[in-house]
Amino acid sequence: MGNLIFAVVSKDISELKIGVLGGGQLGRMMIQSAINYNLDISMLDPDPNAPCAHLVENFQVGELTDEALVYQWGQAFDLITIEIENVSVAALRRLVNKLGKEGYDGRGVQILKKEEDLEKAFEKPGILELLIDFEKELSVITARNKRGEVSCFPVAELSYHPVQNLVEFLFAPAQIPVEIEKKAYDVAKDVIHKLDLIGLLAVEMFLTKDGEILVNEVAPRTHNSGHHTIEASLTSQFEQHLRAVLDMPLGAVDLITPAAMVNLLGEDKFTGNARYEGLEECLSMKGVYIHLYGKKLTKPFRKMGHVTITDDSIKSLKEKARRVKDTLKVKA
Amino acid sequence: MGNLIFAVVSKDISELKIGVLGGGQLGRMMIQSAINYNLDISMLDPDPNAPCAHLVENFQVGELTDEALVYQWGQAFDLITIEIENVSVAALRRLVNKLGKEGYDGRGVQILKKEEDLEKAFEKPGILELLIDFEKELSVITARNKRGEVSCFPVAELSYHPVQNLVEFLFAPAQIPVEIEKKAYDVAKDVIHKLDLIGLLAVEMFLTKDGEILVNEVAPRTHNSGHHTIEASLTSQFEQHLRAVLDMPLGAVDLITPAAMVNLLGEDKFTGNARYEGLEECLSMKGVYIHLYGKKLTKPFRKMGHVTITDDSIKSLKEKARRVKDTLKVKA
Repeated sequence: MGNLIFAVVSKDISELKIGVLGGGQLGRMMIQSAINYNLDISMLDPDPNAPCAHLVENFQVGELTDEALVYQWGQAFDLITIEIENVSVAALRRLVNKLGKEGYDGRGVQILKKEEDLEKAFEKPGILELLIDFEKELSVITARNKRGEVSCFPVAELSYHPVQNLVEFLFAPAQIPVEIEKKAYDVAKDVIHKLDLIGLLAVEMFLTKDGEILVNEVAPRTHNSGHHTIEASLTSQFEQHLRAVLDMPLGAVDLITPAAMVNLLGEDKFTGNARYEGLEECLSMKGVYIHLYGKKLTKPFRKMGHVTITDDSIKSLKEKARRVKDTLKVKA
Repeated sequence: MGNLIFAVVSKDISELKIGVLGGGQLGRMMIQSAINYNLDISMLDPDPNAPCAHLVENFQVGELTDEALVYQWGQAFDLITIEIENVSVAALRRLVNKLGKEGYDGRGVQILKKEEDLEKAFEKPGILELLIDFEKELSVITARNKRGEVSCFPVAELSYHPVQNLVEFLFAPAQIPVEIEKKAYDVAKDVIHKLDLIGLLAVEMFLTKDGEILVNEVAPRTHNSGHHTIEASLTSQFEQHLRAVLDMPLGAVDLITPAAMVNLLGEDKFTGNARYEGLEECLSMKGVYIHLYGKKLTKPFRKMGHVTITDDSIKSLKEKARRVKDTLKVKA
């Protein structure tokens, strides 16, 4: 959902017809926010059972990479935004050229090119070495609207399982020195400016043991590493995305409370209709927010939901996050 | 949405088919919360353009007072709850009797009787005198689940316009002495116990100049005086209602921040397609949360939305609430 394709700014936001390519969990949480503004959202997704399938009036089933389909579908909208990157860029280019309102300078395409550039960079041996040597992985969700406002959510920190080397928890704010924090914001702002991107940009970074910041991955949309903002920030990343693409003032990003986030993945070896174990125990914990993504079928490691945990005390936050992770299980 | 009619508790909550009588703004905010739990919600409402019309897979248009219709519609569900009180109680009785699962003891009906009793009470001159003589109007939203947990949201205070004598603002927490606060909770708990109600009960009270608490009005559902809980409490009233009727543990009700709430009513003398003036200015204010109810048509004093305002400082909170009220207007 990261790119503003074009907008007819003279209309009230509730009069705009907004098309979203993709109807997964990111779209689902965006809809929870969009409801507050009477936004008229239509979606295109290949899966008739996608998480957003019954949450919008016009949900069309179709391949996002089908140029002719995306082109035809897109003509009905004043503004088009994406929920995933794997869409027909050719169709988006044609759509914009055809309608010719507002200057579209290929923002969505630029970001894809830049991402390729970044990927290429990682083929260099020096970066591979840094991948092994990093101290922490950080994430900064950055927003930019057309009028030029740029805002970064507080840096979040990804915590890895010491043995499996997989992301286990996200914590915000990151426990890093102020000068590193500042550097992370500078990097994120620099990237969003250079990409000339309107919308949200998630910038994942490695903090090396030498205190260097290296960009690992960028995503031009709302992002898993910003889900905690729903409860923990004055403005959520989903609302911020909508504000950015609608060219409304960006919202305040202050953290209200320290927060952790745990992804809820399908348990290994279970495939079939999802059952949620430990829900009741988690609901009895204070400051625990469960988000299920409306997916009927679970399979090993499928992203089925996430849980945000808030607490004034970092110690208690970490304990609760661990308990949620050990308690809540998706089985079949 | 205040009454649990019956529930098949052996099922996972996401497997329950939930029917809601009414599809207005209270249902709309409940859906925003229900999405987090994959709840399967169907609705019945007489208005094809009701605020929830496109937010649930099965939205049926029909009169809520039509006994035969409500009876037939209701047979498909494991659990039925209401969003407004004006529904066919006869149909609900028949539905429960027919399905015969879980004991339904006429809770919904009891509460209506009690409300009538209270209304009758107000015909007495003594009470009319108190209406004039009250110091403050307070509201306590109380929840109770089947397992017997009872919980009260912090007391909120309704602030009246000094000349028009209409509710202008809601503030939470209420600025009242601890002993009055305690008395208010005792009254609310007493009422929900005596009504043997499962779900949410909004209890509006007068605090007299003598420090007495008098119950003014009760509503067996989520309530306008609890909307600020979406942003200002650890658990919102909408989530609390769902937890209560699903017999899940009640959520923590702690206030995260002082909050105010302003209703957004259609401006006098404007009827037609709603336009929102001052949206951009309000979006630029920190800690201001706009909720529009998805109503296309405005008319004088129609409830079109509400705005919650949060701030650590009570002074700044009141200033922002006033500014929102003076800025955001619904015209046609």
